[in-house]
Amino acid sequence: MKWRSRIADRPRMKTFHNHLHHVHQGRQEMFRGQMVPCFEVPARLDQVLARVRKQALGPVLEAPPRDPQALAAVHSPAYLQFLAGAWAEWVAMDPANAGRDALPSVWPNQGLRSDVLPGNFAARLGRHAFDSGSPLTAGTWQAACQGAWCALAAADTVATGDRAAFALSRPPGHHAGADFFGGYCFLNNAALAADALRRHGCARVAVLDIDYHHGNGTQAIFYDRSDVFFASIHGDPHTEYPFFLGYLDELGTGPGEGFNLNLPLPRGTGYVRWREALQLALQRIAAFDADALVVSLGLDTFEGDPISGFRLASTDYPQVGEDLARAGLPTVFVFEGGYAVDALAVNAVNVLEGFAQKAG
Amino acid sequence: MKWRSRIADRPRMKTFHNHLHHVHQGRQEMFRGQMVPCFEVPARLDQVLARVRKQALGPVLEAPPRDPQALAAVHSPAYLQFLAGAWAEWVAMDPANAGRDALPSVWPNQGLRSDVLPGNFAARLGRHAFDSGSPLTAGTWQAACQGAWCALAAADTVATGDRAAFALSRPPGHHAGADFFGGYCFLNNAALAADALRRHGCARVAVLDIDYHHGNGTQAIFYDRSDVFFASIHGDPHTEYPFFLGYLDELGTGPGEGFNLNLPLPRGTGYVRWREALQLALQRIAAFDADALVVSLGLDTFEGDPISGFRLASTDYPQVGEDLARAGLPTVFVFEGGYAVDALAVNAVNVLEGFAQKAG
Repeated sequence: MKWRSRIADRPRMKTFHNHLHHVHQGRQEMFRGQMVPCFEVPARLDQVLARVRKQALGPVLEAPPRDPQALAAVHSPAYLQFLAGAWAEWVAMDPANAGRDALPSVWPNQGLRSDVLPGNFAARLGRHAFDSGSPLTAGTWQAACQGAWCALAAADTVATGDRAAFALSRPPGHHAGADFFGGYCFLNNAALAADALRRHGCARVAVLDIDYHHGNGTQAIFYDRSDVFFASIHGDPHTEYPFFLGYLDELGTGPGEGFNLNLPLPRGTGYVRWREALQLALQRIAAFDADALVVSLGLDTFEGDPISGFRLASTDYPQVGEDLARAGLPTVFVFEGGYAVDALAVNAVNVLEGFAQKAG
Repeated sequence: MKWRSRIADRPRMKTFHNHLHHVHQGRQEMFRGQMVPCFEVPARLDQVLARVRKQALGPVLEAPPRDPQALAAVHSPAYLQFLAGAWAEWVAMDPANAGRDALPSVWPNQGLRSDVLPGNFAARLGRHAFDSGSPLTAGTWQAACQGAWCALAAADTVATGDRAAFALSRPPGHHAGADFFGGYCFLNNAALAADALRRHGCARVAVLDIDYHHGNGTQAIFYDRSDVFFASIHGDPHTEYPFFLGYLDELGTGPGEGFNLNLPLPRGTGYVRWREALQLALQRIAAFDADALVVSLGLDTFEGDPISGFRLASTDYPQVGEDLARAGLPTVFVFEGGYAVDALAVNAVNVLEGFAQKAG
């Protein structure tokens, strides 16, 4: 019997917002040879939250805290231990570090060993990272955990009958893997939500990542699993971040072979072509016979995004939501990227309103 | 028959200095979450060169330029093509880049693919690097090539009869691998010299790396070869840069198994214990029946070095040179690290004078 949520659909969408997100606020990131102000700023969430309230999308809630052990569903114990203690170790290296964020400056490339975990914190920081654009701050662990609780609360809500829920958090999550951070992401909220739906009894979960940047962390987490189908529509990694994953030929491995779908599109792609990719992804998700859907909702596909290259307009996003609703699946939306701060709130809520309207 | 140099020993040591080294001058490096002035500065070489002249160590020469194809002896064609064009690509990304050095900010960690070579230059920069502390500048390729010619000229000199020669160059080389840069190094001068000695007919070459930091690039280049024995005495990578190579259990692979020797020592090690490691390395080199020796001469074992942790004194270095001379081998010295600029010249030339005196 196909898995179904157990309570009748309700029309309004709950938003679980990360009320602690402000404690994570990177100062600078390394970008093209220099330190620049972070693109991933608290105002992103504040404005989306204000818009959710203004448009009366539905109840706005905080998520209850959980045992950090819950994070081990998709992250390695060593990585979680590293993240939990990272700021204290960073400051212990040098008291002056309290005044600056932690950023890696050395890492194990293919000529070095990744099977060793040096005692030196600077080395472990690089071992668990794939970029120097993701500042780890005094509040990162706390904010990232609370974000994970939002994703899990949204999954619980959908598992117990709501047609959809929205996990509104930063830092984002889809670039974080089982044991690495990067791309502003530390804990993989979408992966946690997908895994939680599985634990709730949902046999097959699809994760659809519509952020401009490939969700390399989510893909890596589920790459050998057949119970979670991962599909991503993103800028071609040949030219776009994160560069080293997201190619067409990545189909999954072992039992997961055939359960990974990458649809890279060239920089400059507009809505018509982007929507064709969306339709293809949704067809594959239907063929997978998914019981539930997790959407990694990045809004950096917007034409005005400062670090991305697609050309979707604000007026395109309601239809994106409608298309997602047509999949007819219990759906968890997880907030990811989007850096055009002024338009971000409208674009995000446009998707959710489009979904809610179509879902009824 | 054991390989011997073909002309009688001469008492004075030739120095091939990189007369173009000034064109490589990094502005800032990423260090512990912030940009700091580079430790690897032109004054390092200038002061050693002045000391070589003052002490009348021997003739001071420039090396003739060669066909860059010679670098393919130890570096991959793709890497050499990348390095040769890197600055032009960096500036092509953004004209403003002409005013700042190239530093990587994203790289393929173990969760990403290193079998892809993205078109984006920022990605390839990270693909070919293992740290963000090695600025690639407008002059890097030119300076690094001229440094390689110095190393090859020194090898030629020793192959044709001189007991020893000194390749005095910067940027240094021992952290550079077949297809990656890092640790201020772009082309591996010591590896090029060792390989050149092999091509000159020397059956077995030993590379002894006495820089404070493990010579990960040199080790990686020769790791599967039995004709070049690599030995390194260095700060324990568990706590010291480059962190991800240089452990005791790295013995070589395939035909190279048994031809790699790492002697990591704890931070704080003084001369007595350090010399025991040197003696052990020299015993192993004798057992290998080496015909020639390349010494990666780093002086950051000095007690006053700002970024290292051993405690050798300036007065220890003449004996280091004597110990190296006792190996009785034609010897190429290749200048590597050492960042206590005021003492660097005395320490470097102390080694060379100790060697020359003992070698007679």
